Amino acid sequence: MGKVSQYAAVDIGATNVRVSYGDVDGLKEKLSERTDHDNGPGGVARQIIRMLRSLDVNVKAIGVGSIGPIDVKTGTIINTPNLPFKRMPVVAPLNKAFTVPVGMLNDCSAAVLGEQAYGAGRGLKNLVYVTLSTGLGGGAIVDGHLLVGKDGNAVEIGHLTIDSNSPLTCGCGCRGHWEAYSSGVGIPRFAASLLEGRSLDGVIGQMTSGNPGNLTAEVIYGAARAGDPAALDFVNAIGEVNAVGFADLVNVFDPELMTVGGSIALKNPDLVVDPILESIDGHLINRRPEIVITPLGDDVVLYGALALAMKQIPSR
Amino acid sequence: MGKVSQYAAVDIGATNVRVSYGDVDGLKEKLSERTDHDNGPGGVARQIIRMLRSLDVNVKAIGVGSIGPIDVKTGTIINTPNLPFKRMPVVAPLNKAFTVPVGMLNDCSAAVLGEQAYGAGRGLKNLVYVTLSTGLGGGAIVDGHLLVGKDGNAVEIGHLTIDSNSPLTCGCGCRGHWEAYSSGVGIPRFAASLLEGRSLDGVIGQMTSGNPGNLTAEVIYGAARAGDPAALDFVNAIGEVNAVGFADLVNVFDPELMTVGGSIALKNPDLVVDPILESIDGHLINRRPEIVITPLGDDVVLYGALALAMKQIPSR
Repeated sequence: MGKVSQYAAVDIGATNVRVSYGDVDGLKEKLSERTDHDNGPGGVARQIIRMLRSLDVNVKAIGVGSIGPIDVKTGTIINTPNLPFKRMPVVAPLNKAFTVPVGMLNDCSAAVLGEQAYGAGRGLKNLVYVTLSTGLGGGAIVDGHLLVGKDGNAVEIGHLTIDSNSPLTCGCGCRGHWEAYSSGVGIPRFAASLLEGRSLDGVIGQMTSGNPGNLTAEVIYGAARAGDPAALDFVNAIGEVNAVGFADLVNVFDPELMTVGGSIALKNPDLVVDPILESIDGHLINRRPEIVITPLGDDVVLYGALALAMKQIPSR
Repeated sequence: MGKVSQYAAVDIGATNVRVSYGDVDGLKEKLSERTDHDNGPGGVARQIIRMLRSLDVNVKAIGVGSIGPIDVKTGTIINTPNLPFKRMPVVAPLNKAFTVPVGMLNDCSAAVLGEQAYGAGRGLKNLVYVTLSTGLGGGAIVDGHLLVGKDGNAVEIGHLTIDSNSPLTCGCGCRGHWEAYSSGVGIPRFAASLLEGRSLDGVIGQMTSGNPGNLTAEVIYGAARAGDPAALDFVNAIGEVNAVGFADLVNVFDPELMTVGGSIALKNPDLVVDPILESIDGHLINRRPEIVITPLGDDVVLYGALALAMKQIPSR
């Protein structure tokens, strides 16, 4: 019917499903919907198929970046804490609906591919992407190779240990993992632990009604942007922890570039990146890479899905 | 003159230079000499050439595993703290002397190749090698790809941070790096820090004349083998730190197998590995891999150099 053949990109998040299509020049039309939590483990795949069919193109290959954990071998989301289904097949139903090649990676692995193909990492062979959001995640390309691992779970950066004697525990139950300090879930508890009985006053006191139970990442960074000294102390403490985590990644992956995304970083670029740059040299053995906010912003996973789609068909 | 053509393997250590030759079946004749520290930055290369010529074979390709840091692009040992030369070219003089392809990697990268080709990692695509010796070092193969990094210094595992507030500093000057606790250099200081004013008695007291300044890794593990309770406490504390380090590596590389070498581990296999196995689950998010002492022992780097030599010429 005269429709153009295009590569399709899918970003499956806990909150939103996004689809797009594009080519070497980048993403064209973008669609977003709330993720379907209500129609069983097949609901999200049906939602994606409907959204892709509503694009005015013929799909010639599909790339998917998804919340994890995923089983890369079967293209299935498994045991994710963020959706109410134990196993959600993705690759098989998309493949059946469109009879085209479908590739799937976890969102941060997709993101680092997107960074390399469309973002700050163009032409680079050694780069790491870090997301600072509700949780922490990472993707790494070393010597041009995207790291996957035996179960598809390499680069679980949120579970690097910062302090194994910490009272802070991670969602996985372990003590002192990076995610227990610097994720959207961890930040309020980390900040509360730094108070040591002191009260919250000033801007952050007003924002929390003086109750440490009302601390959130948003409140802390918001108060820091307003210049609140206690909030700035929290932000610097988080930054010092992030500097240790980033240094660990530099020391094991030796990247030329690290890019940072995720809602916490995208909303507070300077408050997140500056403290890392200030502290990281104290923890490094390898040469410091460039560390920047991803220029692809919220679209980094979608760009990665597009790059993955293009890898499914050797270029002509 | 009827000599057989063989792949040559070279292991450059701070103390010994070792050469060998072999094929898919493994190493044949092995030669070892004290490393030449006395004849300038070209002395070691000349020593290697002489040793290789004394082997009764024609060399068809050479693999070198070397103490680092190395510059992989030029095949040069650079700024190594263990030899009195700033730049020691290795690949160029060997290439000139034998007019055959020469490959060079740092010793731990070579070791993990050796493990995959000849050791416990045969047929595996995701494995990590860790050496516990005077210093710590590591090599990683992820999805079949040997990690190198932008400067050839990926997998600098000794510089993962265990506790950034630790009073223990690493040779690189940073606080609380893994090497500050668990290397031959770090162990005595870590053990002394655990004493907190208590005296050394029992077996370890006799071995040190009660002076914490006389603690060494050898004394500590020796006393632990003799059942000394204080020494066993030290060994377990080192093991708990090692468990955090090994868990970090599992969480970022997702290997199926980790092998352990280096003099501390090879001399004290159970005292090193058992405490890691006891504690690691408390720090892991990824599925635990098998963790064993390398079956290649002291020859693991030499086996890796042989595997590297064989990669220089596509097999017939």
